[in-house]
Amino acid sequence: MTDANGQWHVEYITPQLLQVERIKEVIYSGKTAYQSVQILDTGCFGRTLVLDGKTQSAELDEFIYHEALVQPSLIVHPNPERVFIAGGGEGATLREVLFHKSVRKAVMVDIDQEVVELCRRHLPNHHQGAFDDPRLDLHHTDALRFLEESTKGFDVIIIDVPDPLEGGPAYLLFTQEFYQMAKERLTDQGLMVVQAGPTGPAFLEQCFASVAHTMSSVFPAAYPYEAFVPCFGSTWGFILAGERLDPAAMSVGEIEGRLATRLTRPLRFYDGITHSGLFSLPKYIREALAKEERLITRDTPLYAV
Amino acid sequence: MTDANGQWHVEYITPQLLQVERIKEVIYSGKTAYQSVQILDTGCFGRTLVLDGKTQSAELDEFIYHEALVQPSLIVHPNPERVFIAGGGEGATLREVLFHKSVRKAVMVDIDQEVVELCRRHLPNHHQGAFDDPRLDLHHTDALRFLEESTKGFDVIIIDVPDPLEGGPAYLLFTQEFYQMAKERLTDQGLMVVQAGPTGPAFLEQCFASVAHTMSSVFPAAYPYEAFVPCFGSTWGFILAGERLDPAAMSVGEIEGRLATRLTRPLRFYDGITHSGLFSLPKYIREALAKEERLITRDTPLYAV
Amino acid sequence: MTDANGQWHVEYITPQLLQVERIKEVIYSGKTAYQSVQILDTGCFGRTLVLDGKTQSAELDEFIYHEALVQPSLIVHPNPERVFIAGGGEGATLREVLFHKSVRKAVMVDIDQEVVELCRRHLPNHHQGAFDDPRLDLHHTDALRFLEESTKGFDVIIIDVPDPLEGGPAYLLFTQEFYQMAKERLTDQGLMVVQAGPTGPAFLEQCFASVAHTMSSVFPAAYPYEAFVPCFGSTWGFILAGERLDPAAMSVGEIEGRLATRLTRPLRFYDGITHSGLFSLPKYIREALAKEERLITRDTPLYAV
Amino acid sequence: MTDANGQWHVEYITPQLLQVERIKEVIYSGKTAYQSVQILDTGCFGRTLVLDGKTQSAELDEFIYHEALVQPSLIVHPNPERVFIAGGGEGATLREVLFHKSVRKAVMVDIDQEVVELCRRHLPNHHQGAFDDPRLDLHHTDALRFLEESTKGFDVIIIDVPDPLEGGPAYLLFTQEFYQMAKERLTDQGLMVVQAGPTGPAFLEQCFASVAHTMSSVFPAAYPYEAFVPCFGSTWGFILAGERLDPAAMSVGEIEGRLATRLTRPLRFYDGITHSGLFSLPKYIREALAKEERLITRDTPLYAV
Repeated sequence: MTDANGQWHVEYITPQLLQVERIKEVIYSGKTAYQSVQILDTGCFGRTLVLDGKTQSAELDEFIYHEALVQPSLIVHPNPERVFIAGGGEGATLREVLFHKSVRKAVMVDIDQEVVELCRRHLPNHHQGAFDDPRLDLHHTDALRFLEESTKGFDVIIIDVPDPLEGGPAYLLFTQEFYQMAKERLTDQGLMVVQAGPTGPAFLEQCFASVAHTMSSVFPAAYPYEAFVPCFGSTWGFILAGERLDPAAMSVGEIEGRLATRLTRPLRFYDGITHSGLFSLPKYIREALAKEERLITRDTPLYAV
Repeated sequence: MTDANGQWHVEYITPQLLQVERIKEVIYSGKTAYQSVQILDTGCFGRTLVLDGKTQSAELDEFIYHEALVQPSLIVHPNPERVFIAGGGEGATLREVLFHKSVRKAVMVDIDQEVVELCRRHLPNHHQGAFDDPRLDLHHTDALRFLEESTKGFDVIIIDVPDPLEGGPAYLLFTQEFYQMAKERLTDQGLMVVQAGPTGPAFLEQCFASVAHTMSSVFPAAYPYEAFVPCFGSTWGFILAGERLDPAAMSVGEIEGRLATRLTRPLRFYDGITHSGLFSLPKYIREALAKEERLITRDTPLYAV
Repeated sequence: MTDANGQWHVEYITPQLLQVERIKEVIYSGKTAYQSVQILDTGCFGRTLVLDGKTQSAELDEFIYHEALVQPSLIVHPNPERVFIAGGGEGATLREVLFHKSVRKAVMVDIDQEVVELCRRHLPNHHQGAFDDPRLDLHHTDALRFLEESTKGFDVIIIDVPDPLEGGPAYLLFTQEFYQMAKERLTDQGLMVVQAGPTGPAFLEQCFASVAHTMSSVFPAAYPYEAFVPCFGSTWGFILAGERLDPAAMSVGEIEGRLATRLTRPLRFYDGITHSGLFSLPKYIREALAKEERLITRDTPLYAV
Repeated sequence: MTDANGQWHVEYITPQLLQVERIKEVIYSGKTAYQSVQILDTGCFGRTLVLDGKTQSAELDEFIYHEALVQPSLIVHPNPERVFIAGGGEGATLREVLFHKSVRKAVMVDIDQEVVELCRRHLPNHHQGAFDDPRLDLHHTDALRFLEESTKGFDVIIIDVPDPLEGGPAYLLFTQEFYQMAKERLTDQGLMVVQAGPTGPAFLEQCFASVAHTMSSVFPAAYPYEAFVPCFGSTWGFILAGERLDPAAMSVGEIEGRLATRLTRPLRFYDGITHSGLFSLPKYIREALAKEERLITRDTPLYAV
């Protein structure tokens, strides 16, 4: 029964490489004021959010993406109380943040209210009720302007917006100017983490290396890491940065200790050994990062494929 | 210019998931006595060997696959002199083995002489002349029978054969009986390593976990590890096993020291930090491995999709 | 904007040939007791009914298929009053029948009530209200048994069921036994017409020629004809048969005269010149029909690809 | 065995509709000074010539395309002696012309010598040795300029060049100015025929109707006709024009008579009944042709998709 008859979701990984997923059911398909939205049930990955033709996350493996995005920064931080999330419409980034007992306030700014409402209705396994938590402060406006108008005071800032596309809403959140401004909204031991696109030899130059280089021009150091997310067809990159801390310096035991005492539930992807693996990038990726010279600015922005 | 016009190579990752690569040139296409063979130049991955419709390795990222397959075992072994390779027709597994000054004899057994000759002609960046090395002892026969008729004496045995397919030549090399027999051909501190199929939540149950479980029924312990290989559309699993050694116990410094003194050239993927990352599997994979109960035997063989 | 990103409907024309249509919207997707059903809005063909993965008809060109199926027989018949339709769930075959003022009763038997109701709701441009016509007598049961239990008395019998698939409900409607039984339900000058699958050199042998041969073993003569239906990716074949009449003998003027006086509306595809073209098959198709020797019976049924 | 694994040729029929053919073998793939060239052996259509990503003709059904292009004009002409062919690199248009005993000179001008040589070597079933006929006068230059510099004297002019693409070599051969100039190179009873792109409701407006309208602005009348060519995924349009003759006026018997006496071999597609079918276009196509108002000129050229 492996013939190709039926409905398929087609997605370019690069112009030379397509990933094609059999669709079991189209849950929703439409356009908001900002982007096109599909919510698909695919045979391989379950409920999947697609924005402007690009898979954002899927039921089967969103735990990998969202734990990898959120948990390293919150575990490395000594006591995260106030967290800012840009994007994250599925509610799963928020969910991971709210697993932490220490968190007293999660400010989430996603420009697209319709996407958030669609996810709330159609992706219950993603948000798991997180939108009902009283610690949430949810806004539907431009995350850049919102943060600009905020005063100092976030322990962790999480940037969970789509890859920068020409004409899309996200590209200004991938610039040196934005990282500088965000840094000034962090508390003393504050940390910032961004999703930074695919890694691997075919994709490195799209986004990951230049975002890492740009963040390291603003912070004393930037710590890139990666995890394999099957529905993206690739390992995926993240960059963690802060004034003070070195995530690679934490031992497996320290991480296990913090996980055991700080969280309200066990995780599926992240633990001490996983943390160690996340930051142990292969040699060729570390070399590509070391050689990267591109600074992303408002005047020289980055557009992914 | 990202339209779909043109020639494409289509490959099922699962029956629900296709990877599709634009073909720049078909270098060779035909059938041998054992399998169908294509050598393609794809826009994304360069020269690519395809056997029975399945990508075996590609120019862009074969260094990841072949260094990950070969280097951990040869570096962990105290002094690898005699190495056995089953399969590996591209010559790149052999190339990695021969980078080691300590190696005095590499016995390579690939059943399909035509594939080896096609690779020798069309994949020069894969083998890099390894087939001309006087330390090579090359045979075209059944690897299982050849090894059975050998006496004790290999320091490392590397199984680099395609995933087991019904009717294909490789499935008997993925059984408890084979691992037992191979173990008896190892020297005292000998190690065995096998490629073991895709990992990740969508693929784990195909092959990786049951091969790991089966090897751990024969050896005191089996050490699974993974690396992301883009042309496979997935992280890829390997299992390393031996009577005595724990690869996870080696420090980054020890590995770097051995690499600096034992090899004739620098590597691109593997080093001390990469080694640490390879064996730091995510929590959900370690849990799936722990729960696996399937033993692969001649009577209950495994067939991948 | 011709990239392949997005949702696509994939359909085998043959195992070597796929037709792939961009999906604008999935109107409905589900399963009935008899078959899987999709109603898609495709970028190329508009609202499209897909049963068991096969396109049945589409908004853009259904007028070609349904006029070609219905009009030649009703125009050739001297005075069609009672018409039987097997299948035709979209209601468009019915619509074409009811355009004829002479028709007093249209008995339609489609086994799948859910498909008929879905078409009634989602394909208004197909049926154009035909289901509300008081001349309709609609049944949801097995068309073969229903016809068997009917007595003589249909002026035209129209078989508009999907291609015969193994295990599908339709294959018994493509046998010599069925044609014999149906012939006995016709009035003296009665005519029978069946949709008979794709024509063209790649497809001729699937269905068209053997259905024509089988019908000509039951009737004095069978008149095959074809029309190009873009959403099928092929010219499509029909067979018209009766005891007495030769459709090819009617002049363009006679057809125009009957059209002008008998119908309540103008048609888009069919007229006198079109009629002449429909029955003027290319030489190679006429030769293939002449050579065909396969008789389809209950014991040796036909299954299309 | 109908899975999608393997190599496929993908071709846009429209931006919303793809035709996808399984490739058995890539015979040739490269670039000439004018265009990209592939010669494929597809599972469905046999040896296939692809220029700039567009199928030109295929072994299985090229007899339909080439007989439809050539035979109506040569049969309708009272005594074709001198024939001009623009394009036609496969040699099959030439082959059809040379089947006529009356033909004393065939002047063929195809700008791309490499394509002609590749077809000569790899498409023997297309040309069937026609390039060796002493009546052939072959030139590799611009057909427009060549014809301009010729004097009056062709009985039939056949335009067999690819659809007009922006930047491609052929678009000037689809203009009023070209048809006017070509008309002046015809003998008194001379005829001109052009391939004019796909027909059918999804494609009509691309090319066919405006080419017909433009030719009818130059000649007293233009006679459009169509044939289904499976490898194009569509019926295909042609326009025949001349000062004097009406091809639709010839009876089946007259055509059969001329075929029997003038040709050196029997044909497969074309005969008297086929001729009648070719020119009996469906009503909706005739109406679209009647309404067309677009004139193609050098200043307002046509580019197909």
